[in-house]
Amino acid sequence: MQIAIVGATGNVGRSVIQMLLQKGIASDQQIKCLASPRSAGSTLSIDQHVFTVQEARHDNFSHCDAVLFNTESDISAEYVPAALAAGAFVVDSSSHYRLDPQVPLIIPPVNIDQVTRQHKLYAHANCLASPIATVMAPLHRAFGVVRASICTYQSVSGAGKAAMDACRQEMQSVLENHPAQTTRFPRPIAFNVIPQVGDFRDDGSSYEEFKIIAELKKVVDAQIAISATAVRVPVMVGHSIALQLELTNPYSIAEVQQLLSSARNVQLSAHHYSTPIEVVGSDDVFVGRLRQDPSHPHGILLWLCSDNLRRGAAADAIEILAAIKAVVD
Amino acid sequence: MQIAIVGATGNVGRSVIQMLLQKGIASDQQIKCLASPRSAGSTLSIDQHVFTVQEARHDNFSHCDAVLFNTESDISAEYVPAALAAGAFVVDSSSHYRLDPQVPLIIPPVNIDQVTRQHKLYAHANCLASPIATVMAPLHRAFGVVRASICTYQSVSGAGKAAMDACRQEMQSVLENHPAQTTRFPRPIAFNVIPQVGDFRDDGSSYEEFKIIAELKKVVDAQIAISATAVRVPVMVGHSIALQLELTNPYSIAEVQQLLSSARNVQLSAHHYSTPIEVVGSDDVFVGRLRQDPSHPHGILLWLCSDNLRRGAAADAIEILAAIKAVVD
Repeated sequence: MQIAIVGATGNVGRSVIQMLLQKGIASDQQIKCLASPRSAGSTLSIDQHVFTVQEARHDNFSHCDAVLFNTESDISAEYVPAALAAGAFVVDSSSHYRLDPQVPLIIPPVNIDQVTRQHKLYAHANCLASPIATVMAPLHRAFGVVRASICTYQSVSGAGKAAMDACRQEMQSVLENHPAQTTRFPRPIAFNVIPQVGDFRDDGSSYEEFKIIAELKKVVDAQIAISATAVRVPVMVGHSIALQLELTNPYSIAEVQQLLSSARNVQLSAHHYSTPIEVVGSDDVFVGRLRQDPSHPHGILLWLCSDNLRRGAAADAIEILAAIKAVVD
Repeated sequence: MQIAIVGATGNVGRSVIQMLLQKGIASDQQIKCLASPRSAGSTLSIDQHVFTVQEARHDNFSHCDAVLFNTESDISAEYVPAALAAGAFVVDSSSHYRLDPQVPLIIPPVNIDQVTRQHKLYAHANCLASPIATVMAPLHRAFGVVRASICTYQSVSGAGKAAMDACRQEMQSVLENHPAQTTRFPRPIAFNVIPQVGDFRDDGSSYEEFKIIAELKKVVDAQIAISATAVRVPVMVGHSIALQLELTNPYSIAEVQQLLSSARNVQLSAHHYSTPIEVVGSDDVFVGRLRQDPSHPHGILLWLCSDNLRRGAAADAIEILAAIKAVVD
């Protein structure tokens, strides 16, 4: 299987290549690295393998069996049709196709069975909808989720490599007693939190909040009432989520623990809870602070942590690719 | 009026002294600084005034008209009775007396009218219950709050000066590529978030979460159903709160804005929202991200920021003291 990665030089693109190699899904000979003209001709070293980055063009998807897009919406919108026209399977990480009713939105631990030979284009969900659905879907099947309230504590790596560098530099600058400054975020991120991820929409929600809600509704159940507040925190990698669920049926904490301990890609945190820096490098969602919601008889409160460059990113893309490979073989 | 400050050398104690002087409530001659034997004999410089710190002892509250305790519960438990026995009014910032039905719990923007000549001992609420109640109480009066969900993004200064130094040092160390380490918090705080503030109780809540809920119920209304998740973030000063309220009656965003714009110690944030570093030095609670909750017809979502060394701390103590002075005069 010949695989092209578009956006190969980004945070997630590099993780995808590393995971393809590590999991033995592809050899370095089977991987083609594509990126913007700016990166074309540069080399990319991943685990002793060296790749020459080529420019992503409409005409270089021939001989590709699958193309993974780790790109922003505008790039996906421009190049995905060319990859499909070349006959390739496509896994798109951008938000461009996610809510398209013709395109299956795949959160692998939840609905990987929607990958079929017939469908060529798949979208995967964002790095918050994916871990939340991973925990919420099994609870919904067992107890019925009526309502979900989500508050995020999301890392800067979701905004790219440059944002990580900017966060580090802002921190260093404040530690040297310079005044806080705004670099790549809407407000200073050093020793601060910012309740804005993406632009605001007319209803007052941010685009990130809209995506979380819409993607969860598409994948888990459109009937669930969902609210979200997305907040950027000065963490490099690893998203955390305070999740409040209202269930239809009575439950016990022991039942929920039992259920989640056997759910796909879920781990119960040791020592009450995980923190984002502890889960970096794992494909799983860690669940802690599991407790009765004192504000509702069927309510439950949970604390989720996951590696946002993997779950809802590289891991989801890789698992969808593996499923494609399985149905093609 | 002769005023003693117990815990004068701490984060909040120093703010209290500064505010007493700045607001002209007391001259430096009227202020007596008390602290642990460790600090006794040292000097404290605040705005060109120099104070000699004395040891807090049971027998040095005579000639005090009022004693402000900016101390932990155990210190308050030990010395408050002595201050009362000496005939002084007492304002206690610790959690020791807050839930005592005999002791008025005062959140000044909400219930300062409970300060009377007859009562000698007052507690003020913690630095989360106070800003939340400041916003929630006027909404409750106007629309009826049925349920509240609270997620905090709380700064390290709530844990004291040493915790602020520890956070700074952990950050510096990680920026120098040393591995993350745990210093004064249950987990590393540098580039991390920690969903634990205080010890855990049998029901799975942290002591901080318990305090937020119990204090809000005591001051605003015991009938409101409340859940809370308290999370420490790497911010020096300034607490933020994602607040979700379910109201009895229909409301419009414009009505709520109107109401809050005239509420005591509330400011509507300019440019959609405030961040914690922007509100340092203010006694007010800043409200932004005001929007309809998509998960409930009468639900509303808000983002609160306040200076935790002032609101729910120094400002509350000072305002209670000013009210005592007014009823005594």
